[in-house]
Amino acid sequence: MNPAPAIVLIGAGNLGARLGIRMAECGIAPVQVFSRNMDKARLLGETIGAEYVNRLGDVYPDADVYLIAVHDDAIGEVAKELSTHLGNSPFVAHTSGATPSFVLAPHFRRYGVLYPLQTFSPDREPDFDRIPICIHSAEQAELEFLQDLAAHISPSVHVIDDEQRAVLHVAAVFVNNFVNHLYHTGYGILQQKNLSFELLLPLIGETAQKLQPGIDPAAAQTGPARRGDTATVQRHLEYLRQDPNLQELYRVITASINPDLTVNRMLRLRSA
Amino acid sequence: MNPAPAIVLIGAGNLGARLGIRMAECGIAPVQVFSRNMDKARLLGETIGAEYVNRLGDVYPDADVYLIAVHDDAIGEVAKELSTHLGNSPFVAHTSGATPSFVLAPHFRRYGVLYPLQTFSPDREPDFDRIPICIHSAEQAELEFLQDLAAHISPSVHVIDDEQRAVLHVAAVFVNNFVNHLYHTGYGILQQKNLSFELLLPLIGETAQKLQPGIDPAAAQTGPARRGDTATVQRHLEYLRQDPNLQELYRVITASINPDLTVNRMLRLRSA
Repeated sequence: MNPAPAIVLIGAGNLGARLGIRMAECGIAPVQVFSRNMDKARLLGETIGAEYVNRLGDVYPDADVYLIAVHDDAIGEVAKELSTHLGNSPFVAHTSGATPSFVLAPHFRRYGVLYPLQTFSPDREPDFDRIPICIHSAEQAELEFLQDLAAHISPSVHVIDDEQRAVLHVAAVFVNNFVNHLYHTGYGILQQKNLSFELLLPLIGETAQKLQPGIDPAAAQTGPARRGDTATVQRHLEYLRQDPNLQELYRVITASINPDLTVNRMLRLRSA
Repeated sequence: MNPAPAIVLIGAGNLGARLGIRMAECGIAPVQVFSRNMDKARLLGETIGAEYVNRLGDVYPDADVYLIAVHDDAIGEVAKELSTHLGNSPFVAHTSGATPSFVLAPHFRRYGVLYPLQTFSPDREPDFDRIPICIHSAEQAELEFLQDLAAHISPSVHVIDDEQRAVLHVAAVFVNNFVNHLYHTGYGILQQKNLSFELLLPLIGETAQKLQPGIDPAAAQTGPARRGDTATVQRHLEYLRQDPNLQELYRVITASINPDLTVNRMLRLRSA
């Protein structure tokens, strides 16, 4: 990738903006950014010294890659509109973990994925040095191009095909979306009794930080479910009885941790 | 607490040893440690310069506090045995989040709890500067004693009665035990496809680190369940169909995140 590639960044939301800024920091600033929201396009463009537009018809025709960093459900539509302006020959990649690359196939001959496996928040600086970048393209030249591009923004680059990325996404739903819901659940349980969520933050942090590559977290599993402590499980279920949703959540996760827990049949009856 | 109190530490396991070392670092080393396992007693005793014994009958009779840091289900039994040697007048506190203080009531007139709200692992150095210490005693003098003791080992000391601590424990089960089980689930999903768990660690870390005191994690909730993305939820359930346990876990957590998701009734039928 010498000289720097001509990148057009489509999307200036949470992920798009972070990616654009990171690429600029790494010496491969996009030449142009697009957002339907002109304020967002301008803010990002001015930040990274790129041209900015809010109409896909104004996008440069000759970029080396068009990187589509928009919401999952808008990718197909944006790709379609882009192709009406540029034809089907440009190389286009999206940045979604949940979306197969072939949503781009009806519109472009050469397509791929560059997926940063992380959750991005407006108020949190992402640490790209620790973000795995999952890349994919069915074409060897395009895959190498993405590999080179990704290697500029993170030391952790992984070739992950559509099927593997779909599996990654299922796993990510468990460890991100579902885990966050359990954080919310803990928050709610404390709030009901005017206890501060702050009390749980060190525990939450340590539970995550003690994980190690290659080691099944089951090895560190503790608690009443794991040790078959029926009395505590029943006491907790009793406590949660005012909220059947929460009780069901507790029951099913407990049963998943310890399918042998004989209390499960009783619990099923209790909550029925 | 001037001069240093005479502390006898009962238990030299994961928590006992960490507490003993921390107290020594903070200038309030236990005068004596007990473990039924003489190797553990000796190791801890020699580490912190305390006497060590492996029989409760050899425990000093005149300590200011006996701190029982043993497994939840052994607390009552240890307390009972201790009282046969010392009578019922010593001040005794346990360190458990899951156990009410009154399990000590049959054996001692003065009792309390000093509960460090954290998960302790043999291979991880705990950061006591960030560990909330929850203390309780029904007696004012004993509560003040524990407050003073706890303030030596952490800047985060909280008076939390039995009922509040039971609620904290339920919440801790959600954000520690249950969350760890979801980590294990993510690990298993990846392992089946020979994908490295390492890919998920930055996401897991950020999901925990972005939490803030006083802010409901629901505000940061993302994913197919939250946005009512029925197609993705169904695709995931389809993928998980070989493992009914896992599918049920996915279904129930998804329904808990978004009770309005109309797909839930269909899912219930599918998994029935």
